[in-house]
Amino acid sequence: MTSTLSPVTLKAVDAPGQPTPSPQLEELYRGFERELLVPLWTEIGDLMPSSPRPAAASHVWRWANLLGLAERSAELVPVGRGGERRAIALANPGLGGAPYATPTLWAAIQYLNPREDAPVHRHTQHAFRFVVEGEGVWTEVNGDPVAMRRGDFLLTPGWHFHGHHNQSDRPMAWLDGLDIPFVHYTGSAFFEMGPDRVADRSTPARSRAERLWAHPGLRPVSQADPRPSSPIAAYRWEHTDAALREQLELADEGHAGVVEPGHAAVRFSNPTTGGDVMPTIRAEMHRLRPATRTAARREVGSAVWQVFDGAGMVRVGEREWAVTRGDLVAVPSWATLTVVASDAGMDLFRFSDTPIFESLHAHRVWVETEGNPE
Amino acid sequence: MTSTLSPVTLKAVDAPGQPTPSPQLEELYRGFERELLVPLWTEIGDLMPSSPRPAAASHVWRWANLLGLAERSAELVPVGRGGERRAIALANPGLGGAPYATPTLWAAIQYLNPREDAPVHRHTQHAFRFVVEGEGVWTEVNGDPVAMRRGDFLLTPGWHFHGHHNQSDRPMAWLDGLDIPFVHYTGSAFFEMGPDRVADRSTPARSRAERLWAHPGLRPVSQADPRPSSPIAAYRWEHTDAALREQLELADEGHAGVVEPGHAAVRFSNPTTGGDVMPTIRAEMHRLRPATRTAARREVGSAVWQVFDGAGMVRVGEREWAVTRGDLVAVPSWATLTVVASDAGMDLFRFSDTPIFESLHAHRVWVETEGNPE
Amino acid sequence: MTSTLSPVTLKAVDAPGQPTPSPQLEELYRGFERELLVPLWTEIGDLMPSSPRPAAASHVWRWANLLGLAERSAELVPVGRGGERRAIALANPGLGGAPYATPTLWAAIQYLNPREDAPVHRHTQHAFRFVVEGEGVWTEVNGDPVAMRRGDFLLTPGWHFHGHHNQSDRPMAWLDGLDIPFVHYTGSAFFEMGPDRVADRSTPARSRAERLWAHPGLRPVSQADPRPSSPIAAYRWEHTDAALREQLELADEGHAGVVEPGHAAVRFSNPTTGGDVMPTIRAEMHRLRPATRTAARREVGSAVWQVFDGAGMVRVGEREWAVTRGDLVAVPSWATLTVVASDAGMDLFRFSDTPIFESLHAHRVWVETEGNPE
Amino acid sequence: MTSTLSPVTLKAVDAPGQPTPSPQLEELYRGFERELLVPLWTEIGDLMPSSPRPAAASHVWRWANLLGLAERSAELVPVGRGGERRAIALANPGLGGAPYATPTLWAAIQYLNPREDAPVHRHTQHAFRFVVEGEGVWTEVNGDPVAMRRGDFLLTPGWHFHGHHNQSDRPMAWLDGLDIPFVHYTGSAFFEMGPDRVADRSTPARSRAERLWAHPGLRPVSQADPRPSSPIAAYRWEHTDAALREQLELADEGHAGVVEPGHAAVRFSNPTTGGDVMPTIRAEMHRLRPATRTAARREVGSAVWQVFDGAGMVRVGEREWAVTRGDLVAVPSWATLTVVASDAGMDLFRFSDTPIFESLHAHRVWVETEGNPE
Repeated sequence: MTSTLSPVTLKAVDAPGQPTPSPQLEELYRGFERELLVPLWTEIGDLMPSSPRPAAASHVWRWANLLGLAERSAELVPVGRGGERRAIALANPGLGGAPYATPTLWAAIQYLNPREDAPVHRHTQHAFRFVVEGEGVWTEVNGDPVAMRRGDFLLTPGWHFHGHHNQSDRPMAWLDGLDIPFVHYTGSAFFEMGPDRVADRSTPARSRAERLWAHPGLRPVSQADPRPSSPIAAYRWEHTDAALREQLELADEGHAGVVEPGHAAVRFSNPTTGGDVMPTIRAEMHRLRPATRTAARREVGSAVWQVFDGAGMVRVGEREWAVTRGDLVAVPSWATLTVVASDAGMDLFRFSDTPIFESLHAHRVWVETEGNPE
Repeated sequence: MTSTLSPVTLKAVDAPGQPTPSPQLEELYRGFERELLVPLWTEIGDLMPSSPRPAAASHVWRWANLLGLAERSAELVPVGRGGERRAIALANPGLGGAPYATPTLWAAIQYLNPREDAPVHRHTQHAFRFVVEGEGVWTEVNGDPVAMRRGDFLLTPGWHFHGHHNQSDRPMAWLDGLDIPFVHYTGSAFFEMGPDRVADRSTPARSRAERLWAHPGLRPVSQADPRPSSPIAAYRWEHTDAALREQLELADEGHAGVVEPGHAAVRFSNPTTGGDVMPTIRAEMHRLRPATRTAARREVGSAVWQVFDGAGMVRVGEREWAVTRGDLVAVPSWATLTVVASDAGMDLFRFSDTPIFESLHAHRVWVETEGNPE
Repeated sequence: MTSTLSPVTLKAVDAPGQPTPSPQLEELYRGFERELLVPLWTEIGDLMPSSPRPAAASHVWRWANLLGLAERSAELVPVGRGGERRAIALANPGLGGAPYATPTLWAAIQYLNPREDAPVHRHTQHAFRFVVEGEGVWTEVNGDPVAMRRGDFLLTPGWHFHGHHNQSDRPMAWLDGLDIPFVHYTGSAFFEMGPDRVADRSTPARSRAERLWAHPGLRPVSQADPRPSSPIAAYRWEHTDAALREQLELADEGHAGVVEPGHAAVRFSNPTTGGDVMPTIRAEMHRLRPATRTAARREVGSAVWQVFDGAGMVRVGEREWAVTRGDLVAVPSWATLTVVASDAGMDLFRFSDTPIFESLHAHRVWVETEGNPE
Repeated sequence: MTSTLSPVTLKAVDAPGQPTPSPQLEELYRGFERELLVPLWTEIGDLMPSSPRPAAASHVWRWANLLGLAERSAELVPVGRGGERRAIALANPGLGGAPYATPTLWAAIQYLNPREDAPVHRHTQHAFRFVVEGEGVWTEVNGDPVAMRRGDFLLTPGWHFHGHHNQSDRPMAWLDGLDIPFVHYTGSAFFEMGPDRVADRSTPARSRAERLWAHPGLRPVSQADPRPSSPIAAYRWEHTDAALREQLELADEGHAGVVEPGHAAVRFSNPTTGGDVMPTIRAEMHRLRPATRTAARREVGSAVWQVFDGAGMVRVGEREWAVTRGDLVAVPSWATLTVVASDAGMDLFRFSDTPIFESLHAHRVWVETEGNPE
C-alpha cells in the first residue's frame, strides 16, 4: 500500500451550530487529530446536505479539440504493453485533476493508427465503446472480432479479455466509457494481461455474439441462464436508428412510446434480464426533433452525454453550451439538465451510473411538469 | 357451483402393503366414505410414484385431418358471441375426453372464413397463435392490429382484449395455444367480453408493439418496468429463421450456440425480464439438420410440438410416428422424447408449461449422454 | 402408462351461441370424436367462466370424527413400508372421490400408536405437519429429530428424507398438509424410500435446524444462499402465540399490525427469502378476538382452515358451519369467506396454494369494504 | 456548488511503458491540461492494478481513547440543531483527513449526556447503532422508541426520521455506522430536519417494530411486501448471543453451522428478503472460541470490526494489533485479515459494504485453505 498517511487538521470556528471556540476546545481538537478522529459537527454541512452537492462540475469537452490532441498523441505515443491504450480521458474540473468525467464514470477518446494493435487484457472494470465517426477497427472480445462503425455501441463487460486492431489504412477514434473511477474508489479493481496482439485478424461484419444474441426477443435455448452483463457485443446503428424513428412515427400516429413530445429514446439492454447492459452502466440513445426542448430533469447519479448528430444547446444548472457532433458534456448528480435541439434536430448518446443507484434503492428523479416548475 | 357431490368408494384388497381385509376393515372404510375421507395407504401407489406417471398419453394429431374438419366447421358453425371462436381443440386420450392436449395446455386449430370476425374478449388465460401456413388475418391485441403470416408467433397475454378479423378473400387457419386446462384446474379463470367486432380494420405489416419493442437489445426508455408477459406482439419468421440459421453456421465454424450437433433452437422471450413470453408458457422453435437425431430427453412438465417444415420421426416412450408439416404431438411429463429429421431436415415449433415448474423450483431434466443411456 | 384411452363424446344441442343441430353437424361431431378433438364453442361456458367456478366444494370435516376413525385405523391398519403412513385424507365432495381437500391441496389426519415408526422416505411433494393436540412424536427430517407439540407447525420440504416415530406411551394425531394433488396433476412426482425405521431415536426439545435458524432476523453466515423452502424445521407455538398477542396489543395502543380490527395474523416464512415456507404452500395462523367478524373476502386459489382454539362460525358462499377445535374447512378458489369468532375468540390455522398464483402473476383478491359490499 | 476548479498537471517521465520525454510530448501534455484531459498511459498503474490497492489503510482506534475524548466533548460541545449529533468519526489515515473509516463507511462514537436529546432528522444515508456498553438511551425511529442496551444492534434505514434521548442519569456512548462516505462520493445525499426534541418520551423495553417483526420466521400478514431495509428496529443481544452459542454447540455435536472450527458467526438480516439489513451495509457478529485463529481471508470491499467482548489479536496484511473491548479496526478492500482470540475467547461485531459489491456482481473472496496458503 503506497498511500501516505494524511494528518487530520481541525479548526474551531465561531459559527452557528458550532461549539464556542476556547483553548479547551482547541485542545480537544488536537486530541481528535492525534487519534485520527473528526467530529460530525464540523463536517455535517458538507457531508449531509439537504440535496446532493457533488464536487464534480458540469463541463463540456469539444470533440474537435479531443481529436486534434489524439492525432498528435498518435505521433508521439506508441500503443503497447504497459500503457495499454492510447486513451485520453476527460478530467472533471471539480475532481482534483483525476481522469474522471464524473465521480463514477470514465470517458476517453481512444485512437488507433492504421494497422495498429492495442494489446489484449482484461479487468473487472466494465467498458463500452461508442463510435461517433469512422470505422476500420475490430475489437476482439473473448476471441470474438467485433467491427466498429459509426453509431455502433459495443460492450466489453468486466473480466472479458479484449484487444483492438485497426485493419484499415486510416486512423480511427472513438469514445471509451468505463466505471474506472467507481471501481478505483471502491477498491474492486483486478487486471490481467493477455497476448500483446489480437489473435484473430478476421474482419467479419458481425460478431459471433451478435449472430447468436442480436435477434429481437429470441434467445438461444442452449444459453438459458441470466448474465450480469449483456451478451450482445455490438448494438448496431441501423437498429438503434430504426427504433428511434419508429417511436417518433408512433407518436405522430397518436400512440405512446416517446419520452415526451419530440423526444424519442432507447435504452441498450441485457436480453437475459431486461436490465442494463452492465451492472454499473446505463447507456441510451436519444433523438430530439428539430427545436425540441426537453423538460428540465434532475436525477441521482451522474451522466455523460455525447452529441452523435445534429446540434443544439445543453443547459446544466446555470450553465449552457452550444454543442455539435462529438461534443461531450458531464452532468453531475442532481444537476438540472435541459437539452434543446437546433432546427436540424439532434441525436445524443448518453451513459450514466444509474444502475448503481437502482440496485441500491437510492435512485431519485425529479422532472419538470406543469405546476412543478424548476 | 354446478359440481355434483361425488361419493367416495373404497375397497379393502388383499395386497402387499395393504391391511388385511376383514369385516372390521370394511366397516372402517364405510366410515371413511361417510365422512368423505380416503386413506393414503390405498392410493399411494398412484399418487406418489417413483417418477411421474401422468394420466396424459402421448399422441399425434394430423394437420390434414384437423384442417379438413375445420373447413367443414366453417360451413356449419358460425363464429360469434357466445361460442366466441371457431377453435377445435386436441383432446388427449388419457384425459377423459376433456379438450386438453396435456393436463395444463390447450392446443387448437382456429379457422376464420374470408372477411369474418372473431369477437373481442379478454381472459386471464394466456394465449398465443402460431401460423403454420396462410395469411390474411389480423389479430387485434388491446387495439393494436397484428398481422399473421406463416412462421409468425403471436402473443395474447392474459387479460389483454383481443379479436381476430380475416381481411382477405381466403380462409385462414392457425394453431392456438393456451393454458386453459391449468387455469381451469386451479380455479383462476376470469373472462370479459368486448365489442362484437374488431374496431381497427387497418392492415399494417407490423404491429405498433413490434415497432416499439422488436429491436434487438433495445428498450423504449419510456417503458422501463418489467412485465409478467412479453410486450412483443409478434415474433416474425424472418428473425426466427435467421437466428436458427446462424446457430448452425456458428456450429460449422466451430463455435458454441446449438443445443447439440445439428440441432439449433431459439426460445421466444420477454425482453423486459429475459424470461419466458408468458408466466405459464414456454415457446421455442427448433431446427434439425437432415438426418439429425436428438438425444433422448425427459423433462418434468408437458409439451406440444408442431412440425413447421420438413418431415421426420417423433418417438415418445415406446411409440413412434412419422410426422410432416402441421402435425402435432403431445408429450406428457417425463416421457422420453427423441426427434429424428428426415433427409430434408425438419423445423419444429414447441410449447410447454415449463415456466410453471421453474417458478416453483420443481423442474427436472434428464438427457441421454454417453454413459447415460436410457 | 396405465391410463385407459377415453373416448370423446359430443352432442349437438339447440342453445344460444351453439350451431344449429343438423345431421351434418352430428357428422362433424363424429369426425371430431374420431380424431380426438373437442370444439371450444361447446365447452367455453364451463372452461372460461366470467369468474372462477371451481369443481371443488366448500365442506367441513369434524375433528372428532376424524380422530375416531383414525383411532379405529390404529387397531386395524399397521404402519409400514408400502402404505408408508397411517394418514387419512379429506376428499372434497366436488372432486370425484379423490383424496383432495382442494384441487391442489392434500389435508389428512395422521396417527401413530405409542412406540410406532412411520418409515423414512422422500418425495418432491412439499409437506408440513400442524399439531392441534398432543405430543410425543418426533419427525426426523434429513436426520434431524424435530419434536411435535400442540401449536407447532413443522416443515418437510420436497426431497427431504423424513420419518416419524412416537417416543411416548400415548398415541398422537396431527394434521398433514401437502401439495399432492398439484404435483399429481402436473406430473412432477418423484419418490424414494429410505430406511424402514428412523435412525436417530433421540428426543431433543428443539431440532438442530431451529437452533441454527430460528433466531429473529439472524442467519448463520455459513449458509448465505437463498433456499426454495424454509430451513426452519419447526415454528413453535410460543413464538406464534406471542406474535399474535402482540399484534392485538399494538392495535390496542393505536398502532398498525393487525389485518383488520380484532383480527391478528402471522405468516410462516422462509428466512432466506422472506417468502412463503415452501414454493407451493402458504401457511398462516389467525387470531380473532371474541365476537370478531372478518370482512368477506375472495381470493384466487384454494385454502384449508383448521380451528386451533376457541370456536365460531365459518361461512363460505351460502353455507355456514359452527366450528370448534380441530374442525377443518375447505375453501375453494374465489369463494366468499367470512369467519366469526364466538364470545371466547378463535385461533385458526390456514394453509393455501397462494404461492402458485403469486409466482405466476395470477393472484387476485377481493375484500369487502364500505361501499364495496358483497 | 462550492468545489474549486482543479487544474490538471501532467509530467512526462522516462519510464517503461511511457512515451519518450521530449519537448513535443511536453507540449502535448500542456494541451491535455488546457482541455482538462488526462491520458490513460500515465495513470494506468494506479487506476488499474492487478488486484485492489486501496488508498485506505488498516488502522486501529482504541475505545478507551475515543471514550475519553467523547467525555471531554460532552463538556465542551452541546448537542443541538445544526451540529445535530455529538458524534466523533474515525478518519482513515489513508483518506486525506476525511472522516471516513473506509472509502464507503462511516464509524463514530456518539455520546449523550444524562437527559440530553439529539434532534430529529432524516437522511438518505443508512445508519445503525451498536452498543458495546451502557444503556439508558432510546432512539426514536419514525416515532417508535427503541431501547439501547449492551450488545444490541439497532437500525435507522435511509429516510426514516430519528432522534435520540437519554432518559437516564448517566451518560451513554455507542458506535454509529453509516454509509456517509459512499453517499457523499456518489452524490446521493438528501437531508431533512424534524422536531428539535424527540416527541415520545416513553421508555418501553421493546420497540413496536420488534413486537411486530422480531419473531423467528413469522411475518405479519398485513405487511406482505419486501422492503429494501429490515423492519426490525433492534436485534437484541440475547438472541444474537443464543444463536452464536448454539452454532458452537452444534459443532461440538458434530453438525454444520459454524464458519470454521471455533468460529461462529451470524448475519443480521432483513426478514422480508433474507438479504442484508440495509442496501449498502452488512452487519455480523462473530464469536471465536479461546485461542481460535481464523483462516486468512481477503474480500472485495471494506469493513470495520469492533471487539465486543474478550480480547485477542487482529492482523491485517503485515500489521498486527492486540485488541480488547471496544477497540475498532478498519480493514481495507482485499487486505488479508486474520483474527486470533485470546485464551478468554473473543466476540466481535463487524460491518462492511459487501452488499454494494454483491448487488453489482463485483464481490470476490479469497480464503486460505490447505494447499492455498497466503
